[in-house]
Amino acid sequence: MLDDIAHIGRDPRTGGYRRYAWNDADMQLREWFAGEAAARGMELVEDGNGNQLAWWGAGDDALMIGSHLDSVPDGGAYDGPLGVVSSFAAVDRLRADGFAPSRPVVVANFADEEGARFGIACAGSQLVTGGLPAEKALGLKDREGLTLAEVLTARGRDPRAVGRTDLLDRIGTFVELHVEQGRSLVHSEAAVGVATAIWPHGRWRLDFCGEANHAGATEMADRRDPMQAYAATVLASRRLALDAGARATFGRLEVEPGGTNAIPSRVRAWLDARAADEAELDRLVENLVHQARAAADLDHTTVTLTTESVSPAVEFDVPLRDRLAGLLDAPVLPTGAGHDAGVLSPHVPTAMLFVRNPTGVSHSPDEHAEDTDCDAGVEALTAVVRALA
Amino acid sequence: MLDDIAHIGRDPRTGGYRRYAWNDADMQLREWFAGEAAARGMELVEDGNGNQLAWWGAGDDALMIGSHLDSVPDGGAYDGPLGVVSSFAAVDRLRADGFAPSRPVVVANFADEEGARFGIACAGSQLVTGGLPAEKALGLKDREGLTLAEVLTARGRDPRAVGRTDLLDRIGTFVELHVEQGRSLVHSEAAVGVATAIWPHGRWRLDFCGEANHAGATEMADRRDPMQAYAATVLASRRLALDAGARATFGRLEVEPGGTNAIPSRVRAWLDARAADEAELDRLVENLVHQARAAADLDHTTVTLTTESVSPAVEFDVPLRDRLAGLLDAPVLPTGAGHDAGVLSPHVPTAMLFVRNPTGVSHSPDEHAEDTDCDAGVEALTAVVRALA
Repeated sequence: MLDDIAHIGRDPRTGGYRRYAWNDADMQLREWFAGEAAARGMELVEDGNGNQLAWWGAGDDALMIGSHLDSVPDGGAYDGPLGVVSSFAAVDRLRADGFAPSRPVVVANFADEEGARFGIACAGSQLVTGGLPAEKALGLKDREGLTLAEVLTARGRDPRAVGRTDLLDRIGTFVELHVEQGRSLVHSEAAVGVATAIWPHGRWRLDFCGEANHAGATEMADRRDPMQAYAATVLASRRLALDAGARATFGRLEVEPGGTNAIPSRVRAWLDARAADEAELDRLVENLVHQARAAADLDHTTVTLTTESVSPAVEFDVPLRDRLAGLLDAPVLPTGAGHDAGVLSPHVPTAMLFVRNPTGVSHSPDEHAEDTDCDAGVEALTAVVRALA
Repeated sequence: MLDDIAHIGRDPRTGGYRRYAWNDADMQLREWFAGEAAARGMELVEDGNGNQLAWWGAGDDALMIGSHLDSVPDGGAYDGPLGVVSSFAAVDRLRADGFAPSRPVVVANFADEEGARFGIACAGSQLVTGGLPAEKALGLKDREGLTLAEVLTARGRDPRAVGRTDLLDRIGTFVELHVEQGRSLVHSEAAVGVATAIWPHGRWRLDFCGEANHAGATEMADRRDPMQAYAATVLASRRLALDAGARATFGRLEVEPGGTNAIPSRVRAWLDARAADEAELDRLVENLVHQARAAADLDHTTVTLTTESVSPAVEFDVPLRDRLAGLLDAPVLPTGAGHDAGVLSPHVPTAMLFVRNPTGVSHSPDEHAEDTDCDAGVEALTAVVRALA
């Protein structure tokens, strides 16, 4: 099934995927999902937030499996889609075995998990839980300045349907399968693992401001160049994250005015930071901003911090985690990556399965999982559904 | 006259100008130039490269004055236009005085001086001298991927007319008036100065390459993040430029894939560097690349250097410079900024006049010159034309 969608949203230049919420690639993937549901006689329901659900059986207390189909810019083939195709594959195996579930089994495709277009990750699941208010979501703009409300309308959806739903009242358990985005399972020599927790994480915008000037005629001593404080902050971020056993990344940047021969007036940089607990994360960001301010002060430039989103730590349901780890004889591991499972976990007993990633590379065209490990993932998910449904 | 064009190509958000070669603002400025020439009965000639020339009188051995009308991104109101409007104003004063020139006087508007759109500065004058081959120029692409040839065609120009012309055979002297882009004249307490030289300068592209990966799940120690070596290089550039009494700037940057939660695979940065002589400039770039490579090596990332353009040092015609400095009783000064005058100087006796800039700020909406100093500039240019023509 991964082969069936391998061409959708792939940039021929980089080999990476550009499947962003409601873009053409995302619309094709939605069509593909609907087709897979129909081929299995599963009832397709799309909620007001664009989350797609394929139901095997009806009723309450359903077991939900699945993941998402969208990608980061130049993302890989597995992050998201592996969980969706493994879920359909598990349904196929159970049916081939004549298994009759005692509760409904639902395959989910959550909308806009990566937040690549509107800047807020797990938007689809956060809208379901109310963690992201509908009004805020509808006003979010993409890089072209289009709001989510405008994009939904253009795609034939009703913006008034966006917001909290009663979906979770009908779900008793959620299990999300996902490719691992690190190398813990390589070290454990296991094809499949069970998640313990998701680190708290967030996105902050740092605006380094100085004074635009001529790159040739302005003496170094006369400059108020914000690029210098930005650079010092990038180096400090690595040092601080290493010291804290945490993670800090600058992956997105805008430079104004952006001319080769103009000293920048502003460098706008986005910080992604994660740590093992919330106090550690707060400390990391605080220390980093302190160092950024010190660097900016020395140059007579300024820096301002804007918190764009912060996700608290998630501890997955302990009895469920222990049960799955025992059932699968699988190692347990935490992760620094956010997931819809993390969003839903406070509201419904939730677990995650990870499939081994030989290099640990993710959010990149080089992301990979061996076919035998993907198969082990389907096998594990099949066993989980058999045990829980 | 500056007021007449103050609205053209101005970004209402920043107050800066976005007058790039052949964009709508540039087309309006061309119309304005044609109108000013017509209003004075000056014959307008546009050469195949888009350089506009307004002739007062006919014949050879002309005295050319003028500058350019395009801008850097978010540029100021004076860089370029001050030289063009001062030239028309000087013509008006001379005519009001009944002055009859003994040789033709030509007001010039050189095309694409800033190189903001196609990346090569002084393209219009370089095409005239053959310093920029027509074939190379026509293939240059803007950020939307349009070639200069396509843009010229869309604007009703013939790409086959681009290239070396015989214009300079008819020009005996060139004097360009320009706002100063530093504070030498503030220190000299003079409204107008005469240029001695333009520092050699160039643009280099540095491609820092690493490996895209997940910002949350990838341990700091496992990363190959090219942003780190870029940041180290930015800090090194200031140190090296200060030590060499030179200038180094990173004002333009592209980050791939550019997602907040993705470690970059590539940071593409443009270096603008200038120094008092060519050996010093070579040394600066060499030392910087050495430090960039060392930083990249430590991170298992790479950096490659591409020379986009290098302009040699320009020493303006010494007898002409001395004559003008004596005539105007004006101080002499070098500059780190490139100009069409620098391109033409090896081909025709050339001089530059600078008008005081109280803050030294240029390539910014804050660029400024006092009205009284602008008037002193017109007065000086008028005296120069009277003496030379």
